[in-house]
Order: sequence, then C-alpha cells, then structure tokens
Amino acid sequence: MNGAQALIRTLVGAGVDVCFANPGTSEMHFVAALDDVPQMRGVLTLFEGVATGAADGYARMAGRPAATLLHLGPGLGNGLANLHNARRGKAPLLNVVGDHARSHKRLDAPLESDIDAVAGTVSTWVRRSLSPADVAADAAEAVAAIATGGIATLILPADVCWEDGAEVADAQPVRPVPHVAPSVVDDVAAVVRGGEDVVLFLGGDLMTAQGQLAAAQVAAGTGARLVVETFPARTARGAGLPDLHRLPYPPEMAMAALAGTRHLVLAGTTAPVHFFGYPGVPGHPVPEDCTVHVLSRPGEDGVAAMRALAEAVAPDAKPDVAEFERPELPTGPLDPRTMAAVVGALLPEDAIVVDEALTSGVGLTELTSTGPRHDWLSLTGGAIGDGLPMALGAAVACPDRPVIGIQADGSAMYTISALWSYAREQADITTIICDNGSYAILEHELQKVGAASDGERARKLLDLGGPGLDFVSIAQGMGVPATRATTAEELADQLRAALAEPGPHLIDAVLR
Amino acid sequence: MNGAQALIRTLVGAGVDVCFANPGTSEMHFVAALDDVPQMRGVLTLFEGVATGAADGYARMAGRPAATLLHLGPGLGNGLANLHNARRGKAPLLNVVGDHARSHKRLDAPLESDIDAVAGTVSTWVRRSLSPADVAADAAEAVAAIATGGIATLILPADVCWEDGAEVADAQPVRPVPHVAPSVVDDVAAVVRGGEDVVLFLGGDLMTAQGQLAAAQVAAGTGARLVVETFPARTARGAGLPDLHRLPYPPEMAMAALAGTRHLVLAGTTAPVHFFGYPGVPGHPVPEDCTVHVLSRPGEDGVAAMRALAEAVAPDAKPDVAEFERPELPTGPLDPRTMAAVVGALLPEDAIVVDEALTSGVGLTELTSTGPRHDWLSLTGGAIGDGLPMALGAAVACPDRPVIGIQADGSAMYTISALWSYAREQADITTIICDNGSYAILEHELQKVGAASDGERARKLLDLGGPGLDFVSIAQGMGVPATRATTAEELADQLRAALAEPGPHLIDAVLR
Repeated sequence: MNGAQALIRTLVGAGVDVCFANPGTSEMHFVAALDDVPQMRGVLTLFEGVATGAADGYARMAGRPAATLLHLGPGLGNGLANLHNARRGKAPLLNVVGDHARSHKRLDAPLESDIDAVAGTVSTWVRRSLSPADVAADAAEAVAAIATGGIATLILPADVCWEDGAEVADAQPVRPVPHVAPSVVDDVAAVVRGGEDVVLFLGGDLMTAQGQLAAAQVAAGTGARLVVETFPARTARGAGLPDLHRLPYPPEMAMAALAGTRHLVLAGTTAPVHFFGYPGVPGHPVPEDCTVHVLSRPGEDGVAAMRALAEAVAPDAKPDVAEFERPELPTGPLDPRTMAAVVGALLPEDAIVVDEALTSGVGLTELTSTGPRHDWLSLTGGAIGDGLPMALGAAVACPDRPVIGIQADGSAMYTISALWSYAREQADITTIICDNGSYAILEHELQKVGAASDGERARKLLDLGGPGLDFVSIAQGMGVPATRATTAEELADQLRAALAEPGPHLIDAVLR
Repeated sequence: MNGAQALIRTLVGAGVDVCFANPGTSEMHFVAALDDVPQMRGVLTLFEGVATGAADGYARMAGRPAATLLHLGPGLGNGLANLHNARRGKAPLLNVVGDHARSHKRLDAPLESDIDAVAGTVSTWVRRSLSPADVAADAAEAVAAIATGGIATLILPADVCWEDGAEVADAQPVRPVPHVAPSVVDDVAAVVRGGEDVVLFLGGDLMTAQGQLAAAQVAAGTGARLVVETFPARTARGAGLPDLHRLPYPPEMAMAALAGTRHLVLAGTTAPVHFFGYPGVPGHPVPEDCTVHVLSRPGEDGVAAMRALAEAVAPDAKPDVAEFERPELPTGPLDPRTMAAVVGALLPEDAIVVDEALTSGVGLTELTSTGPRHDWLSLTGGAIGDGLPMALGAAVACPDRPVIGIQADGSAMYTISALWSYAREQADITTIICDNGSYAILEHELQKVGAASDGERARKLLDLGGPGLDFVSIAQGMGVPATRATTAEELADQLRAALAEPGPHLIDAVLR
C-alpha cells in the first residue's frame, strides 16, 4: 500500500478517526486514500484556521485528538492562531502538513517555505516522514506523544504519500498520566490546615465534575477558597456542581479577587498572570506575601491528588453544590445581561457552550451556572477566532449534544467560513452573534493603556460600523438559517426555535 | 514623545504612510498615535491575512512599502500566507508586530509565543525594538532594508510604544539597485547571436513597459523567443506592448513551451520549476541540453541590462507590439472563456487586474492582452487568498484607477472579510467571483497525481456544494453591492454598471 493509505489506517488504529481538512495539491493522495478507509471521517473546511480550531474543540470534548490536513507552510500559517489556542489549552491535536515531494523540495518551488520552523512554535512533536516505510511508525509515535495533551505535527512529503512500500503500524503505548506523590499532598494538607487564607487555584483536569467536587470538599472542610483559572479549556457546570468563580480578566479585579491570600495552591494549572502588561500595574495578581504551592501540574493526575487531599483534610465534609435554578426570561431591550439571561433561561440539558463572547459575556457564566448540566469551552490562548471553529469540532465529537456558540462579532469574522462547514455537516450548533458593532474590548483597552488620545482616527480602527456587518445575510450566504433579534423576547423566541430544530442556526443578537 | 509617536512619524518621513491594521491590546498606543499623525492612513481590516495581502498589492502598485499592524504571534500567523506571497513576489513590506511589554514577556502570558521564529520564515529583516530610544532608528533601518524588495518585521513591545524618551529618526539611505556588469551583457549577447534556439525568460522588472519593449527589441532583431515567468508580480499589458506569453502552469505544457531551447537567458527572475512534483515528471521544464544564462537577477537593474543587450545585438530592430483589439461581447452561456471575453471587451483604460481566477482563468490573459493598457497582478506564491486583499491594497495605492478582481470562489473564502474593508474604504474595486462551486484545481490535481481512487468521499473534500456559497448574500452582508450573472449578457450588463459607478461591487459569475 502507499504511504497515505498506511498513514490513515494507522491513525484510525490509534483512535484518530476524524480529519478536519483543507487540502491542496500535495495532499491529493491523502484525500484519495480517504475513500479506502471509511472509518476516517473527513470534514472539509474552507480555511485552515477553521480546521485547527475545530480540532481544538473536538479534542476538548472527545478527549482524544483529531487530525488536521493542511497544505504546506501557508496552510499551517493559516491554522497557526488556533493551534496557539490549542497549545495553551493543552488539547491533543495532530497536524498532517503536506509538503513537496522529496525530489522537489530542493528546487525552491513557489510554495516552498520553512514549515518546520513554524510548526516548532506550537508543537511538542515535529517530524518529517522520510520514506513510505517510515510514515506509519511516525504517525503512531505522533499520536502516542500527544496522548496527554500537546500538538504533534507530521510533515508529509507528497511522494512519501504516493509511493508504495508502506505498512500499517500498531498504536504505540502512551505515557501514563503522572501521579502526584503522597508527600506533595501531605505538604499541601499542612498548608490548608494552617489557618491562613488559602486559595485553591483550579484548572485543567480539576474542571471535571469529580475534580470540582473534590476541591469543593476541601473548601467545605477547611475554609479554603476556590478560584478557577480565567479561561479553562473545558468546565463541567450546572446544578449539582460547585458554583465556582473564575479569576477575572481585568488586572484590577484579578488582584482584588486574590487580595489577602497567603497561600495559593495550584491544582491542574499554573500561577496566574495578567493577559497583558499595563503601565504601572504588576504583571500578575498574586500578592507579594503570598506563597505559591503546587498540588498538581497540568498533565498530572490532579483529580486523584485533590481527592487524596480531601481525604486528608476534610474526610467528612460535604461539598457545597448549586441547587437547580434558572433566571427568568427577561423582556425588553437586548444587552449583554438580558442576552445572558435568555441563554440561562433556555439552556438545554447536556449542552456544550462555546464562549467567545468577550466583552459581551458579562453575566453569561453567572446566569448559566445553576442551570442544567453542561460543558463550557473558553478561549484559552487569547487568539480570537476560535469560537466558531471550536463549536464545529465539539459538534462532530458529540453529535447527540446541542452546541451553543456565544460569539463576539469582531472575532467571528476571523473564521466566518466555519458556518459553511456547519451547514455541510448539518452540525447541531446554534450561534448567537453578540452584535455590538465594534471591537468593544479594544475601545476599553485604548482607555486602559492610558493612550494619550482617542480621537476620530483611532476610534475608526476599533469600530465595525461603516458599514455594519449583516450576519444574517452572511450566514445565509453560507447555508446557515439565520434570524435577527433586537429584543429579549425576540432572542428567546428565536433561540427556542433554533434549539427545537436540528442542524445549524445563527441568531444575530443586536446589543446596543 | 512616546515610542509609538516617534515610530509613526519616522515611518511617514521614510515614505511609509499607509498602515493596514488589525490591532489588539498591545497595539493600542500605536492606534492612539495615529491621531497625532494625520499623514499616516490607517486602513482597518477584520483579519490579518487581509492586512498582509493588501500591503502586498499596495507595494506592487505603489512601488514602496505599506506597513501592517499585527497583534502578537497569532496575528502574524494569520498574516503569514499572504506574507509568503509577498516574499515570493519580492514586494517591499513592513510588518509592525505588537508584543507584550518587556516586563511581561518573561511571564509566559496566554498570548506569548515565538514571534521571532515565525517572522524569520518570511522576513529578510527582523528586529525587536528594545527601548523607546531605539524604535525610530529601528524603523528607519527597516524601511531602508526593504527598499528594493523584501519583508521587514519590527517586533514592538507595548511598553516601548507607551514610554516616553523617543525621538523621530531620519530616513536612512537605501542600497542602490545593483547594475549588471557590461561583461555579463557581452556574454549574453554572444549567446543570443550564436544562432541556436534562445529563450529570454522574463520576470520582475522586465515586466515593466520599458523592460518588455527592450526584450521585444532583442527578440525582433535576433529571433530569440520571449517567455514570461508563470506568475509575475506585476505586468504592464495592452496595446502598444509586446503580446507576451507566460510559461504555462501544467508541467507538460511548460515542458512543451521550452522544448528545443538550447539557451535559457534569465532576466529579472530565476530558472523555472514546476509548482509541484508529480510521479514520473521532472521537477522543472528546462530541457536537459539547455544551458541557463543569467542576464539579471531579481533586484538587479534588469531593464538597463536588457536595453544594453538590445543596443548590442539589435540596435535598429523595432519591437513587435500588439495593435489595439478587443474581443467582441459574447452572448449565451457563461463559462471561463465567455467570462474572459466579457472582461476583455469591457476592460477600462488604465485598469488594475488582480488575477486569482486559477482554473477559471482560461482565456483571461489572451482575451485582454491587446486591449487598453492595464497592470496585471498575479498570485506569486501559490498561497490562495491573496486576490481579494491585493485588490484592496492596489485600490488604496492607486485611487484613481479602476481595480478589477477576478477571483476563484474557493480561494475567495480564505480572506472574504476583505469585502468589508472595500466598503469601509469605498474602494473602487469590481470583484468577479468565478463561481464554479468547487476546488476545481484540486479535482484536476486528484486525477493528475494518479491517485488510486476518486470516489464519493474524496470528491466531497473538493466540492464546494452542499450547501452552495451565495456570494451575493455574503457580499451584501459586508456592505458591498452585489449581483449574480448566469449568462454572458448579464455579466456584461452588470460589469458595465459596476465600472460606471465608483466604489466596490461584486458580481457572482456562475460558471457551470
């Protein structure tokens, strides 16, 4: 068999059976080989940033990697921003980047570029397959390398795909998830018992239901406070789980949230830093006299460590969990808060919420936290334009669960062609565009950095008006049914209707 | 003054007075400083690939660099594909990439990534400004470094922008364009006079009117054939100029075009190679017994060298130039050829044609070559999605010239938000979408690589149907008036109307 056939069969054997693809000429044998291996599902995207963002969302929900299929260096470049987000969220993800045939590589053809250098900036594993005999083993190794998170990039010369002499490789053993040593748990137990102000700072695997319940047990038994990292990759939420609060994004609010903390215990995440530096503001919110301890690092078995800690310091404590309660359906003008209340009031059971609402997300987590159980995906790396693609990946990973994307308008435009893939796949995704007609976050930032001026010419670079974006028209142009809501009642009616019908829908929520 | 103010003033002083921007938080002082320097025109794009592609188009038409303003590593990543095209076309272009404040850099904040590594893959000059006192001199040096083409990337920490202590720097002297030595011209003259089959292979500065006329004089006097590189960055065309033929893209046709050539003389370009390698096909079209000679390399003064050659070998020859002739307006069904004939029949005087028609471009160069004088921009690096942005940049560079973009449908979707910037800037651009509902080039390639199978699942990855893209709706959603043409008559009517009215228009030309 040829390299492409062996590669795809090896991937399927290793549990990678979805490929978000935007192929070009050098990937044609891979495309052709898809016909031979029906277990591999190819999902076409019209832009590589959609493919990589979808693979990010898929990994977060499926807990295992999807592949992307990208066309040489420029294709990898187009996918880079959402690979950055996936890297920050520690999602497992396998890029297959087609390249020139080996004999063509030295000719500096027009599409030649330094793929390896670009791949290296986001990948934990990079390899160029050197022959058809190698490609399957390379692929098996790539999948094993990212079993506990991280990005593998397999660079695939076209002739390695098209030549015969390849054989399927067995899945490789994966590194076990490291256990946290009992002495570490003991040390943290002493800190928690010490009577000083302790915050358990949670992220990663602690955002699963079991992780949160174990942390809440510690909190209930010891008075330690629980604070969640600002943008966790995936969070289980809803009634029956602790109502946890995230560390706020604005530096001043983050510092206030941790003020007085003497011991910050990291579990599943790293110490917080502000998203950006600002004139005269410290770079992180941890108080000067606070000691930072580590219960578990990202990639370690933090849930087991937290359970051991709970057993040690609060064996009989009951975690404080939320009772089921929804906001009432609001009426009247649509603003971020009434939008959030509509979402909270109508959130279906077992939904996946993809949150790229940014400034329009005020109230969104609060008004959904005690509703039906759901999973929440947030923007981990700050590279906007992950929301629409992530929703696609989540819907492919979980076809029986409704996906709701809450999407800022400016950010939506980076990867807007994701909507076409929604329609192509008939993905059950309801997209709510937070249409405020501006890069509102930047208007805020322009003030915050103390910029000397915010006159007409500067504002024009932050304003999405002139002309306004008509998301209904854009969505319909890509095959997604769309409506516009200008009041809370309209949004409620349209959201109810969208959720009642399978397949994609978009609601342009005009927030003014 | 602060670093941002000094930077912008220095750029304006060095002749860089347009900035295609997609800013984020770390660029807010740059944005604020735009208000203080009205000579710098900020053009907002909704995606960085539009900014970089626009800067590419601007440089090709203005002959000098624009700046881009990009947001950290992910912003640079989003712009990378069109930077690749600019690199291949040797356009001068200055990226200003905002980065974290210096104090914040070491904290590994969520948006931290290796900007320098990514920038290095496309740039001839990369520097990180280390203090406000340095930034203006860095900027002046960057502009000087790319005077004869190439990409400079200035990485700009936020605090270098916001801190005071900066001063404007003078424009730096630029390296002169290297002259070709008389002995080189003499050597080529001997080859051309030698009586064997000679091809002058032209690109770069030879595609100016003067360059083509000098080459055509050589051809007229010596019998040397003229062949143009497949995708020149900018070509002067129309009646009064030689009707030159480009080396075809398909390897078989390229090899046929050079068959029998004993001497290939490069002028303004490098030796041709095929875009991709294919099983059993040589990597380039140059015959085995052909000797390759260099008259001028890219970046050298090839026009002067060609004139000297003409003076030496054909002082009295008259170049063969095209008489004015347009195709008749066709009627009936719309296909690539009738579309091309409509464009040829209606092409306005002094137009700029941006060609990303790909497979739908059959007949397009042929049917426009003897019409009114115009400039033609093509896709230099093969990274699709440069067409819509390039047209924006060309329109900003040449506000008094009509711009016509001939744009393949699949490729349009990579940077579709360019249309919004057309509307924002009221750019005089008429976009014709070649709407064939597929990645037609890949359907062709799937056959060509000899892929074993082209069944249903493979085809689904090359087909843009299910759902079809409604470009009229998409364009209207971004504020661009749009119509649909399904016959040659409709296309002619709509093109005439679009050209008669300033501002952007889009015509969805349904080629079936």
